[in-house]
Amino acid sequence: MSEIRLGIAGLGTVAQGVLKLLQDNAEPIDRRADTHIRVQRVASRTPKPEVDLLGGLFSNDLNDLLADDVDVVVELIGGEEPARTLIQDALAAGKSVVTANKAVIARYGNQLLPDAPLKFEAAVAGSIPIIAAVEQALVANKISQITGIINGTCNYILTAMEAEGASFDEALARAQALGYAEADPTFDIEGIDAAHKLTILCSLAFDCALNFDGVYVEGITHISASDIQFAKELGYTIKHVGIARQNPDGAVEARVHPGLIPVTDLLASVNDVTNAVKVVSDGAGETLFSGPGAGSTATASAVLADVVAFARGEQPVPRELQQIPFVAINEVTGCNYLRIPVRDEPGVFAEVANALSAEGISIEAAIQKHATRSADNVSIVLLTEPCTGVQLDRALASVSQLKQMAGSIVRIRVEN
Amino acid sequence: MSEIRLGIAGLGTVAQGVLKLLQDNAEPIDRRADTHIRVQRVASRTPKPEVDLLGGLFSNDLNDLLADDVDVVVELIGGEEPARTLIQDALAAGKSVVTANKAVIARYGNQLLPDAPLKFEAAVAGSIPIIAAVEQALVANKISQITGIINGTCNYILTAMEAEGASFDEALARAQALGYAEADPTFDIEGIDAAHKLTILCSLAFDCALNFDGVYVEGITHISASDIQFAKELGYTIKHVGIARQNPDGAVEARVHPGLIPVTDLLASVNDVTNAVKVVSDGAGETLFSGPGAGSTATASAVLADVVAFARGEQPVPRELQQIPFVAINEVTGCNYLRIPVRDEPGVFAEVANALSAEGISIEAAIQKHATRSADNVSIVLLTEPCTGVQLDRALASVSQLKQMAGSIVRIRVEN
Repeated sequence: MSEIRLGIAGLGTVAQGVLKLLQDNAEPIDRRADTHIRVQRVASRTPKPEVDLLGGLFSNDLNDLLADDVDVVVELIGGEEPARTLIQDALAAGKSVVTANKAVIARYGNQLLPDAPLKFEAAVAGSIPIIAAVEQALVANKISQITGIINGTCNYILTAMEAEGASFDEALARAQALGYAEADPTFDIEGIDAAHKLTILCSLAFDCALNFDGVYVEGITHISASDIQFAKELGYTIKHVGIARQNPDGAVEARVHPGLIPVTDLLASVNDVTNAVKVVSDGAGETLFSGPGAGSTATASAVLADVVAFARGEQPVPRELQQIPFVAINEVTGCNYLRIPVRDEPGVFAEVANALSAEGISIEAAIQKHATRSADNVSIVLLTEPCTGVQLDRALASVSQLKQMAGSIVRIRVEN
Repeated sequence: MSEIRLGIAGLGTVAQGVLKLLQDNAEPIDRRADTHIRVQRVASRTPKPEVDLLGGLFSNDLNDLLADDVDVVVELIGGEEPARTLIQDALAAGKSVVTANKAVIARYGNQLLPDAPLKFEAAVAGSIPIIAAVEQALVANKISQITGIINGTCNYILTAMEAEGASFDEALARAQALGYAEADPTFDIEGIDAAHKLTILCSLAFDCALNFDGVYVEGITHISASDIQFAKELGYTIKHVGIARQNPDGAVEARVHPGLIPVTDLLASVNDVTNAVKVVSDGAGETLFSGPGAGSTATASAVLADVVAFARGEQPVPRELQQIPFVAINEVTGCNYLRIPVRDEPGVFAEVANALSAEGISIEAAIQKHATRSADNVSIVLLTEPCTGVQLDRALASVSQLKQMAGSIVRIRVEN
């Protein structure tokens, strides 16, 4: 049996998962790869004597992974540097590279990817083989839209808020206590992590250049337990979603934000830290892929799928990185949930409706005065018919001038 | 650009979907394959002049597909013969073969598969890349269980029964009117189709020989609207499922039957003709894949994924077809839903409970007397704690001897 020699960068959670699966499942892995997968070298700034390196040579120097006895560099350091440099150097040294690094692919993929033996299944949605689905399983399709729940921290928080009526802060604290959110959770709850992943999915789905700056990014910190309750009454659940859609003219929408999802949509039932990605394509229709979006062996499972593909001599599917126009967020058309806090005075609903109507926005559903009361304030909760962000911004500017306004308007996009 | 020449057998729904996608998406398909996919020949007993063969030569003789100018035979005839013979002859002639034929793979796979360039993604769950998931994405995992909703006809019928309180016969008639069920629906509603698919999944997941005869098969014709209602009250939905599970001793359970699925399980939200397969593995945890399980382009999408893989020079993952013991259905341990029609007389519940208890079966939940009444008959509805089929059969034999019995006992497995 031939042999393929790995040089693993990093010795954190995911690297330990890779070593664990290589140890536990050595026989089936080697048999299916028809190649012995050997851990040749492991490089990490901090040695972890308790981790079995399966015979690999340990080093503190990442450059040792560029040695001639390494065939595939497995980059599991995370963060932009030194990961990006290592990937670049490894490719330059003629090695295949497997990485779980969404930030590096999202931000530097345009330089790294062309014609490179570089695979990154683990960079998006952990265990879920969504890259393989888009590039291989759906190879014969034109994809029109991808909608993903691709940040487990956000999904855990929103699920807890819905299930228990918890506030955002309470749910975040719980997520932190359980290890589902970092001490500094900014990256997750502000949507940056999801935007990295969406950048990658968008590029693969629409054969366009990676364009992180073209992705609209909004987090979940402004979502309240009452919004979740109102959404439920209207037949929706609130999820933090990443959406990439190609319009008929070829322009691409890419946006990460909270969204109202109909409870009948399978995505609405994806709870806790589970991730899911729904792909709409012309041939296969609606397909959905779900699973753990993070975790040691879950992410390692995806890393090793890429390693085995290289071991079997499979090269990445050719990628096109065309420059394609991205739609500005306020040009995106869609329905909206609005929560408008007002003083409970006669005629206020009519004034709100008039302000929307003046910009050509119709109301699809409304829950009036059915709200958390504080003194004589109420919430007017509305679902709009489709309109652009430009229309809505103008209408809400008028609404916010109404003398009955009693707080800030909450606006959440509806994804029917 | 190099070229790969297809010989397509059959000109039915799926073949037409293949031709449609090859026409609509020729550019991206060829680019990703890095090869021109050419339709060289099409063979079918009945010509269809309205179908564009994309330049392929038409023939009534399947043997023409064995000509030297064909590289990949795409078998889309369905049924056992002449499909099986064609696949065998094509492999013998040195061609790669792609098939959507679950019956042939399930029944003759042990002869056909070893070391053969034969791929069959479309044979299981249409558009869903479940074969790729099991063989490639999850290559580094030990799979412990697969649970699938793998027959769209059954899922449509059960969904309609739940949503509208329709009877089985009404729901079947609707499915037939919509083209979701055949005029003779036996193959679907009796579970044979699902058993073919489960046979294949089981073999791939557990590296065992295809063993159609080892699969327990039960359909959905005995499910009533009231069972669905009772299940709902208990927090479950009834789905027709295929389950393949490997016990710690290595023996495999493979069974197709209606099952109560907790409403919190993502599978419970998979409705209408959609299929879904959940895979539990040691590294990746619970992953789920859903999508259309049938249909022209949905199935064609999977066929073409296999074609492109061959075009890219990828060979099937090596398959092990070990002889592994299968567990007899009455040795399977699990919880059960029981509906026991009785005359409403004092002490009847106690007698039922005693009969179960005498065989060591505990009751987890019960809905007593809360049933469709006809005269003085009621239904005792129970959920049992885990027990074997042997235990349950003995207990139910006693129960059915009770003098208060007023009909046949319905027993449905619970899959927690």
